[in-house]
Amino acid sequence: MNEVISTTKRVAVVGATGYAGAELTAILARHRGVELVGLYSSSGGASAPVTPSAPTLVAQPFTLEALLDQSPDVTFLATPNEVSATLAPQLLDHGIQVIDLSGAFRLGEAALYPAWYGFAHERPALLDEAVYGLTEWCNGELKSARLVANPGCYPTSILLALRPLTYVIDRDQPVICDSKSGVSGAGKKSDSAWSFAELYGNFKAYGVGHHRHEPEIRQGLRLGDRAPLVFVPHLLPTFRGILSTMHVAFVRPMTSEEVAAAYARAYANAPLVRVLPAGELPELKNVVNTPRCDIGYTLIQGGRRAVIVSVIDNLLKGAASQAVQNFNRMCGFAETEALT
Amino acid sequence: MNEVISTTKRVAVVGATGYAGAELTAILARHRGVELVGLYSSSGGASAPVTPSAPTLVAQPFTLEALLDQSPDVTFLATPNEVSATLAPQLLDHGIQVIDLSGAFRLGEAALYPAWYGFAHERPALLDEAVYGLTEWCNGELKSARLVANPGCYPTSILLALRPLTYVIDRDQPVICDSKSGVSGAGKKSDSAWSFAELYGNFKAYGVGHHRHEPEIRQGLRLGDRAPLVFVPHLLPTFRGILSTMHVAFVRPMTSEEVAAAYARAYANAPLVRVLPAGELPELKNVVNTPRCDIGYTLIQGGRRAVIVSVIDNLLKGAASQAVQNFNRMCGFAETEALT
Amino acid sequence: MNEVISTTKRVAVVGATGYAGAELTAILARHRGVELVGLYSSSGGASAPVTPSAPTLVAQPFTLEALLDQSPDVTFLATPNEVSATLAPQLLDHGIQVIDLSGAFRLGEAALYPAWYGFAHERPALLDEAVYGLTEWCNGELKSARLVANPGCYPTSILLALRPLTYVIDRDQPVICDSKSGVSGAGKKSDSAWSFAELYGNFKAYGVGHHRHEPEIRQGLRLGDRAPLVFVPHLLPTFRGILSTMHVAFVRPMTSEEVAAAYARAYANAPLVRVLPAGELPELKNVVNTPRCDIGYTLIQGGRRAVIVSVIDNLLKGAASQAVQNFNRMCGFAETEALT
Amino acid sequence: MNEVISTTKRVAVVGATGYAGAELTAILARHRGVELVGLYSSSGGASAPVTPSAPTLVAQPFTLEALLDQSPDVTFLATPNEVSATLAPQLLDHGIQVIDLSGAFRLGEAALYPAWYGFAHERPALLDEAVYGLTEWCNGELKSARLVANPGCYPTSILLALRPLTYVIDRDQPVICDSKSGVSGAGKKSDSAWSFAELYGNFKAYGVGHHRHEPEIRQGLRLGDRAPLVFVPHLLPTFRGILSTMHVAFVRPMTSEEVAAAYARAYANAPLVRVLPAGELPELKNVVNTPRCDIGYTLIQGGRRAVIVSVIDNLLKGAASQAVQNFNRMCGFAETEALT
Repeated sequence: MNEVISTTKRVAVVGATGYAGAELTAILARHRGVELVGLYSSSGGASAPVTPSAPTLVAQPFTLEALLDQSPDVTFLATPNEVSATLAPQLLDHGIQVIDLSGAFRLGEAALYPAWYGFAHERPALLDEAVYGLTEWCNGELKSARLVANPGCYPTSILLALRPLTYVIDRDQPVICDSKSGVSGAGKKSDSAWSFAELYGNFKAYGVGHHRHEPEIRQGLRLGDRAPLVFVPHLLPTFRGILSTMHVAFVRPMTSEEVAAAYARAYANAPLVRVLPAGELPELKNVVNTPRCDIGYTLIQGGRRAVIVSVIDNLLKGAASQAVQNFNRMCGFAETEALT
Repeated sequence: MNEVISTTKRVAVVGATGYAGAELTAILARHRGVELVGLYSSSGGASAPVTPSAPTLVAQPFTLEALLDQSPDVTFLATPNEVSATLAPQLLDHGIQVIDLSGAFRLGEAALYPAWYGFAHERPALLDEAVYGLTEWCNGELKSARLVANPGCYPTSILLALRPLTYVIDRDQPVICDSKSGVSGAGKKSDSAWSFAELYGNFKAYGVGHHRHEPEIRQGLRLGDRAPLVFVPHLLPTFRGILSTMHVAFVRPMTSEEVAAAYARAYANAPLVRVLPAGELPELKNVVNTPRCDIGYTLIQGGRRAVIVSVIDNLLKGAASQAVQNFNRMCGFAETEALT
Repeated sequence: MNEVISTTKRVAVVGATGYAGAELTAILARHRGVELVGLYSSSGGASAPVTPSAPTLVAQPFTLEALLDQSPDVTFLATPNEVSATLAPQLLDHGIQVIDLSGAFRLGEAALYPAWYGFAHERPALLDEAVYGLTEWCNGELKSARLVANPGCYPTSILLALRPLTYVIDRDQPVICDSKSGVSGAGKKSDSAWSFAELYGNFKAYGVGHHRHEPEIRQGLRLGDRAPLVFVPHLLPTFRGILSTMHVAFVRPMTSEEVAAAYARAYANAPLVRVLPAGELPELKNVVNTPRCDIGYTLIQGGRRAVIVSVIDNLLKGAASQAVQNFNRMCGFAETEALT
Repeated sequence: MNEVISTTKRVAVVGATGYAGAELTAILARHRGVELVGLYSSSGGASAPVTPSAPTLVAQPFTLEALLDQSPDVTFLATPNEVSATLAPQLLDHGIQVIDLSGAFRLGEAALYPAWYGFAHERPALLDEAVYGLTEWCNGELKSARLVANPGCYPTSILLALRPLTYVIDRDQPVICDSKSGVSGAGKKSDSAWSFAELYGNFKAYGVGHHRHEPEIRQGLRLGDRAPLVFVPHLLPTFRGILSTMHVAFVRPMTSEEVAAAYARAYANAPLVRVLPAGELPELKNVVNTPRCDIGYTLIQGGRRAVIVSVIDNLLKGAASQAVQNFNRMCGFAETEALT
């Protein structure tokens, strides 16, 4: 903990009062290279703590003028997709780097936005420029990024687990991602369908075939349009965490040693990804309130298939802490500064 | 289970789609002396199952005409206070007996309604006529009742535990009722304060000094206006159940045998109240999904004080099953018909 | 509710104090054709309520002599696998019909027992005779059954959903069953791994490739030894319920109408199976505390694949209520007697 | 976050693998003035992570030799009462300062130990020397302490709320402490009574009249032997947190302003205690995973009585973070170092 932090970045957060925004703000508040120059709620209203459990971190109603007055070097957007789509270009035009936690810049093809997100992109060129911030799979590009599209929570859990094996996964066979998320993934809700009474002791699948994270997963796995992907998200009766169970076939029988080697190649130097020994599967509680992804796998059917399970905290590695990981790389801080 | 049921009552339920209304409907559907002639939602909309878990029990939008067409002998109202206050007199005027699960007829003094319930009673004479249906403390009056005011959930848990001891409770000392309820007590909510995300893992007190059940408890204990009563409700992170912890002083030191005898006098023949041996305290799960109240007590400070704990299922003994108990007595069925 | 019940069966339960045994006992206690002549705990000890929430139903320590003295017509065994394997033949030899809730008689091949259950069968001929009691798929054979093997909880949820479609499921493609169960499926546990502190807010997969229900599912789907089946059970942080998400490929593109028709052929007259409209997926809470199975499906990839989701209460349709369904058919009672 | 940390303390933890010990270790690991020289599990076994969610913090089986070899300046004991009672004197004799999280040194009178803790103290003089570490109520004594008795979780929640008002609380009237704790307060349990299946959706009181924290509360409030105290702990169906509801009478009617002033006198400079405005009561989730105590109060009955509610995280302010607060004062670090 004693490296010298020689520079300080002026940082603002828009959308600081959502569940992910509050986590993000709390991390940035303990970051030794950050001066928090502006905390804003995107939903307006009076100034208020970003969360009742951190009463000293207070957010103001957002205005662009107020934010620009603070001259931030970097602004995090934990805002709805449409808000980010409009706001990010404005900030970039003022020379402010942007790390966007929404889905507004995650998909490379502008044509996908109307169908999956319900709006057309005004600045599609930014989709080319945006760096998809699945941190462990970024190289130097974060260093010079003006705009980072922070990955979705489900895609993070799936891509970290499958990317090391894409070279051997059979893309003619369906890649099945059976994912389960805590309730916080949906954000703050005033709909009785999200009430305690309706969700306590409950469990269900939702959004099959039309969840916005599906094209993001497909893109992240380089599956193209036709390779079979099945993504089924479910809602767990808990607040935090995602566990994804993935069912894949290989183009040839694999040994546990080969799989272990593939993961080691990918993550030997990744401080926030932990791969378990073959046959050992991770559990949710071990990553809740941590910035880590744990991955486990079991080979079945003579190594021709595998069951792969990954777990993350959806609000941290699936949102806030990955955003700070990206920030750390972008600004030259240690990757885990403020995270461990 | 084989007594002969010789008569059948035509029964309607208004407010069948709320949490308590759905429980009530399910009980009535298995009652051997009930013909369910009308199920109505008070909130309008299309016809729909009273609850997704009982898809064959379907409620219609309420209209008075539709209900009167069915000529029910008895109608249960699981409706908001104001709705019951208006509807009950109309039904009574048509010769229909009413069991009201709201608070509209629980308080004997009309003058209390504006302050505690926010409306004035149009038919205050009905407050005199209404039978307060704390079943185990009713005698013959249910037999001839036209209108039953079914007790509140908190008052049920408290009055069943304290009424047998009122003769010896010191009313100059505060009677402290520290109650904890599951979330279903609040009914269906579309407010983010009642969302899963806000209540999971949470616990809090609420409504101290201004909860509507306070005057009902005071009335039920015959405390008058000035005897000190402290009622603190709390919200438990579970769906069902109320546990009330009561702290009382006695006018003289009591022995466990005396307390046990007082409870035995009150409940020797009560099939749905169970009093535990001295020093043994009840737990919530033993009454959840049952129509029963369990009561335990521990004498402290040489018998000058006691800690008394009672548990009920707020939707059953605190609402639906107690309503059917009252119906059973009203109509001459066995007290536990359809309940055990 | 008013059919005449003309006969009464003398019924005993061994293992009445487990979670499933207590549910079973409560159902039988309200069955109009049952005289409960013996309730026994298989774990010995003193007599005690089968569950604290039903204090009037008391179980005695089991002895064969005590049970035989009661001359039951039918005995339910909610006992561990090895206990059932030994006890069922003894009861059959005394002319008592047996409904066994354990796995001791579910697999048709005796050779599978040492590997999957850890013991060899002494009376393998009984495996041929036992009727596998997936009620909706039994015909007349329950009428004359001496021994019913009540299905496992996971297999029930999976087989009810997939059996109507086996004629069109592609068995060269993996059938993937991603199942999630509440904690009660494991029975009463005094291991810290099953403590509240370890499981609250947690979620994990377990037993991949070596869960005893895998050969039962394979047998129930007639998959043979080599067709690819992937069964991944997970542990949900709730008490009751199983949701199984099944991923299957078809031998030809299917329409929703064809799938709906297949389910209708299977379940048009099944009072305890509900199939939802195409595209609508069931949720756990709608079947918790009910004897029902709800099934939903969504066709994907042009109808070449489907995501199928089923939900049951593992202690009811996955154990106790299905056992009583089988008993009802065996003894000529209405299929839903005591269940709805 | 940028004060200079000029000194470093060599610190060891015994009992690092319990729930509180793991929290403590995680805090110390990010403390800029701490060198963690030894982590030990008191229960023996192999070396293992202090918790699965922090795999890099590994505890060794405890031996006194191993610990002494590391020459710690300060050792935290998160060990059972008897272990601490024996171990603390040995460490003190070697010149090592001790912060004990058990109850072994909390009570000033040795005579209380056999009755409440079941063992007699071998070194009763240490009870006089030990500093009772309710941090906000310690003055200079922590500076020179050799032995700190870290308060119990329930007493912390109660004493922080009531100590500012003891001057005006009527000690002839009962002080009633109705406390509710998450399950982690009991530590790791392999008893079926603590299983998920038994506690999910449950709630109960326990230990009335014989909980070890009762004499500690009595001592902390200077109540003497005879002033009436009623302490009723309950078990909440959640993992973390304590909420205590306190019912007190005053010797004279109080105004909200007077109560607010009393709290301000006590906590104006306390960074980890937050007192809410009159009439606003705290909720558990706002302190879970924080080192803070939140306190609220409502005056009733004309100011002659109050309902006071406090909340803490039992594993943090009720154990680990308060221990580090004490350590920080003992060693001259900022009070909130590593805590906020």
